[in-house]
Amino acid sequence: MITKRVLFTKLIFCLVMTGGGMAAAQAADSLASWNDGKAKQSIIEFVATVTKKGSPNFVPPAERIAVFDNDGTLWAEQPMYFQVLFALDRVKALAPQHPEWKDKEPFASLLKGDVKGAMADGMKSVVEIIMATHAGMTTAEFETIVSDWIATARHPTTKRPYTEMVYQPMLELLDYLRANGFKTFIVSGGGIEFMRPWSEKVYGVPPEQVIGSSIKVKFDLREGTPVLVRLPELDFFDDKEGKPIAIHQQIGRRPIAAFGNSDGDLQMLQWTTAGQGPRFALYVHHTDAEREWAYDRKSGMGRLDKGLDEAQAKGWTVVDMKQDWKVIYPFEKQ
Amino acid sequence: MITKRVLFTKLIFCLVMTGGGMAAAQAADSLASWNDGKAKQSIIEFVATVTKKGSPNFVPPAERIAVFDNDGTLWAEQPMYFQVLFALDRVKALAPQHPEWKDKEPFASLLKGDVKGAMADGMKSVVEIIMATHAGMTTAEFETIVSDWIATARHPTTKRPYTEMVYQPMLELLDYLRANGFKTFIVSGGGIEFMRPWSEKVYGVPPEQVIGSSIKVKFDLREGTPVLVRLPELDFFDDKEGKPIAIHQQIGRRPIAAFGNSDGDLQMLQWTTAGQGPRFALYVHHTDAEREWAYDRKSGMGRLDKGLDEAQAKGWTVVDMKQDWKVIYPFEKQ
Repeated sequence: MITKRVLFTKLIFCLVMTGGGMAAAQAADSLASWNDGKAKQSIIEFVATVTKKGSPNFVPPAERIAVFDNDGTLWAEQPMYFQVLFALDRVKALAPQHPEWKDKEPFASLLKGDVKGAMADGMKSVVEIIMATHAGMTTAEFETIVSDWIATARHPTTKRPYTEMVYQPMLELLDYLRANGFKTFIVSGGGIEFMRPWSEKVYGVPPEQVIGSSIKVKFDLREGTPVLVRLPELDFFDDKEGKPIAIHQQIGRRPIAAFGNSDGDLQMLQWTTAGQGPRFALYVHHTDAEREWAYDRKSGMGRLDKGLDEAQAKGWTVVDMKQDWKVIYPFEKQ
Repeated sequence: MITKRVLFTKLIFCLVMTGGGMAAAQAADSLASWNDGKAKQSIIEFVATVTKKGSPNFVPPAERIAVFDNDGTLWAEQPMYFQVLFALDRVKALAPQHPEWKDKEPFASLLKGDVKGAMADGMKSVVEIIMATHAGMTTAEFETIVSDWIATARHPTTKRPYTEMVYQPMLELLDYLRANGFKTFIVSGGGIEFMRPWSEKVYGVPPEQVIGSSIKVKFDLREGTPVLVRLPELDFFDDKEGKPIAIHQQIGRRPIAAFGNSDGDLQMLQWTTAGQGPRFALYVHHTDAEREWAYDRKSGMGRLDKGLDEAQAKGWTVVDMKQDWKVIYPFEKQ
């Protein structure tokens, strides 16, 4: 039994709750930064297909799971992953507490400004730098460190805050999918605790929908107060085969749409499109050396080689950034 | 700009979407299976506190995270965890494919109907039985096995389907919290893939809000089709210290309310209540030998000892099932 008063309360509640969203009727215009073309068209057609009631391809809202890679898909990843730049900044900040670093690689080279020298040992160097800067503190302390850095740090070439180096067309896409009943998740090779402090504000993706790589944590009672302490030990590397595994373990449903930009996303796109019913897979192809960066098959960072072949073979959507996007970053809109 | 037509669409959409829920004004009555008393009162007061706009204790909906243990908190756990009963049934079903089991413990005793003998080696026996019955198949195959079992298996003493042995007052509590903007999660020591196939239907908790213990899975391409294969290796044991760790890794926000029934939930309740602002912790105390089971400090299954002391010391809510619940199971309502 719905009384008049309850009905009225519901209406007001609903208006407040949906005021910031957009109605389905406005959806097509909401991809305003996308040039008309095959990529934009494929997105709109897919969304129309799965949301059409009564159609055999209709997908109930609960199953409209969309997964997005982060580095190179939602924000830039050049000249190197932003989390690596964060780690380099942390080495500098922590150096006074570590006098031994001035004679110890990879820190010594790094502190002299020689990033290339510091990276001489490849992944080994990266892991040492990550563990030295990402572990040893409580989870609450690390959240503060990330929040402070993201609020103040600037990208080395654009001099913009990192959170402004997100792709405007992808922000619109996230909104568009959510307006059509999708639940949007991030599934990134980046650290889960590096993304969560700002993902809700920047992408509208709440912490519980952010999946990523992680290090182990330990539960401890400090004077009766429980804390979680970050340990210098990898828990999970959310890349390649790791992505479908993490999706399965943490979401427990197969996505119907997946968005990536590199070979590290290939298994996620394969896993998504192997499900029954309508599926959508999209690669962002970095083709714009002028407004962003151009790289693909031979890049160290965000290599797109096997993925590009498979996308062509399987008819997945490939976004040509130069052709398909009116603007790259939100600050270009003005 | 909201046009009249868009406004109308929103109203209709909202009515449809909230038709099955309940308005806050009706909330108190929605705990109909709870006797009036301290436990019910404490729940209502907490919800009123965190939802009161303008109050310093107001908590925004996005932060209203509530976590529930499953075994002994949302459904029964006697004479032993239902997942163990599932495993025992699976041993019988798989026996024809494993002739070697008739000479190999713990399977030999089990197949003779001697459960106690099969459990002679304690956890070692349990792990052997779990791995033999929970691994070796794809995740899709396992989902089918669980779905088939939960639809047909019956509890050894009540002869009811297991999904009817859920606690009616807790179902009402889940609904009540969601009607007040809470996001409800399960955080169980039980297997995540044992719960997900039915958690949405039975508890209204979608798979992506179910956290539990897990075994490792491997990504594989079978004739070009990706599958995830379940491996006989523990990935994560979601009990005791594991619960706050899993909450942190998978939700990324500290809950404001936590519900459990055993010492295995203690760290989750400690972690929840250690946050700033209003917090709520509740223990279900099994005190009703007639309608359910009575057990606490000395029980092997669901022991509540340290937790009971801490609840009393800290003023957490302790539900006396015999006193506080009008009915235990949904089928008693008629």
